[in-house]
Amino acid sequence: MLSEFDLIKQFFKRDRPGRATLGIGDDCALLTPVPGRQLAISSDMLVEDRHFFAGADPFMLGHKSLAVNLSDLAAMGARPSAFTLALALPAADPVWLEGFSRGLFALSDAHGCELVGGDTTKGPLTICITVVGDLAPGHALRRDAAQVGDDIWISGTLGDARLALAGSWQEVTLDPADHAQAAQRMHMPSPRVALGLALAAQPVAHAALDISDGLVGDLGHILAASRVGATLDVDALPAGPVLARQELALRRRFTLAGGDDYELCFTAPVGNRAAVLEAGRASGTAVTRVGRIEAEAGLRLVDADGTPLHLELSGWDHFS
Amino acid sequence: MLSEFDLIKQFFKRDRPGRATLGIGDDCALLTPVPGRQLAISSDMLVEDRHFFAGADPFMLGHKSLAVNLSDLAAMGARPSAFTLALALPAADPVWLEGFSRGLFALSDAHGCELVGGDTTKGPLTICITVVGDLAPGHALRRDAAQVGDDIWISGTLGDARLALAGSWQEVTLDPADHAQAAQRMHMPSPRVALGLALAAQPVAHAALDISDGLVGDLGHILAASRVGATLDVDALPAGPVLARQELALRRRFTLAGGDDYELCFTAPVGNRAAVLEAGRASGTAVTRVGRIEAEAGLRLVDADGTPLHLELSGWDHFS
Repeated sequence: MLSEFDLIKQFFKRDRPGRATLGIGDDCALLTPVPGRQLAISSDMLVEDRHFFAGADPFMLGHKSLAVNLSDLAAMGARPSAFTLALALPAADPVWLEGFSRGLFALSDAHGCELVGGDTTKGPLTICITVVGDLAPGHALRRDAAQVGDDIWISGTLGDARLALAGSWQEVTLDPADHAQAAQRMHMPSPRVALGLALAAQPVAHAALDISDGLVGDLGHILAASRVGATLDVDALPAGPVLARQELALRRRFTLAGGDDYELCFTAPVGNRAAVLEAGRASGTAVTRVGRIEAEAGLRLVDADGTPLHLELSGWDHFS
Repeated sequence: MLSEFDLIKQFFKRDRPGRATLGIGDDCALLTPVPGRQLAISSDMLVEDRHFFAGADPFMLGHKSLAVNLSDLAAMGARPSAFTLALALPAADPVWLEGFSRGLFALSDAHGCELVGGDTTKGPLTICITVVGDLAPGHALRRDAAQVGDDIWISGTLGDARLALAGSWQEVTLDPADHAQAAQRMHMPSPRVALGLALAAQPVAHAALDISDGLVGDLGHILAASRVGATLDVDALPAGPVLARQELALRRRFTLAGGDDYELCFTAPVGNRAAVLEAGRASGTAVTRVGRIEAEAGLRLVDADGTPLHLELSGWDHFS
């Protein structure tokens, strides 16, 4: 049987030199902050049967566990630097651990984000990651920074993750190839770190967040924090490639209130449209203008002709 | 039913101004590092039925969840500054949340350590805290810094938490008042933050860690990392007040290989004995000299007369 210490040594401690001043193996990791930069920090917890199915592929789970945290850094415009991993496992299964750590490190290496410490214990499968990043003071893309007149933008596409779930729950019938393609979006989200950095660089954008619980609910956080309202052009919302082939009502519902998208929703002054498009181009990320921040409170949905839409939608609440 | 957002607002978001540049409510918290200081970061996860019993008092659980993390900062000699809390809960129970948050904030306020963000989700009761502290470069009390000839010291007392467990498991018979007193040590550990800071200030000590899995196992980490050995005077080990009234064999076993003590084990040069005692006095923490770091590998146990003891002991392994 693999001991706690062997488990860490075998799957999570790496020989390569890290950037941390002191990494895995002491009571704390030690980091030396970059002078003059602020720190961004965020924690996310993933629970079996809540955030992923029992028996989920460990490689994809390792990827996703870190991806959802990097997405929080992206939404702030922060550069990833380090993370801790706390892991409760029903058993120390080497096959699972090998897959999980490979998925985790493939993504962490791609972003130069180093595993510096954590905790392992026996328990119901639960993954808690805390990421640390850094950014220039005053450049954070905060939720309370949207201004009246700002355009609202979305990165990438929305709704395919929700569509995959609908396929699994048999809410909709998908052919197997479509289902597999949509499921890939659900299991392997791409955190928009490069776009977030480009948007925070000037800064080009005002407010931003990542869409994890559905656009309407998440955009609502920007509106509340910034004390503004908005109109959203529902038919301008970029649907995922599989969802784009579904009927209009479903497309609207899942782009507006999907979940698990991990795209950025951000606002930027009209004068920065060219700069936003350039940030998208430079980071290899599609960006689509989908609405406008307004002084009038509330969120108004309109179709391509500007006709108001009245749709029943709800965000994701973990305790509802 | 309490929503996720109401839950955070009602129990975890506070009106008082914090030190964080941006606290709860955005994708990330923002911290502005103190110029010239290093960061110490550590994560611990507590799982129901593993680290605490189902039905555990929520106030004490809130205290302990943060205490075990602050203990990691103490063992590094770092000053606590901020923490994140990720919480999986079977249900959003206001009574539980009220008690838990009171216990958590009573300790965080006492140490000036601010809750800056986190995550809440439904799931088996699991608490994951990540603490951040800061310290002067080169002053961290690392596990690999013990030197041949160093004294070995212990803060406070050992073994009462393990004795409380033995009482609950009916390994030993304790009278109810003794059991309650010992259980207090198990449920409400005092992280030795002030002592850790005093030891790191000059620095007075070389190596340190916190004793969470039993002294023998934890001291073994210092010996391995520092590539040294040690002799421990078993009868010099400070037993908790309840354990001190038990028979010798039990006292030896639970001081050597208890668990859940959250005391510091540290090494310091012989020339710093007066400074160590002064650090203990200034921080209001008892410190006891219990052994010596030696060049010869391995850990040797001796009694008060220096006679070698051969005891069967094992540390705590979460996957054994």
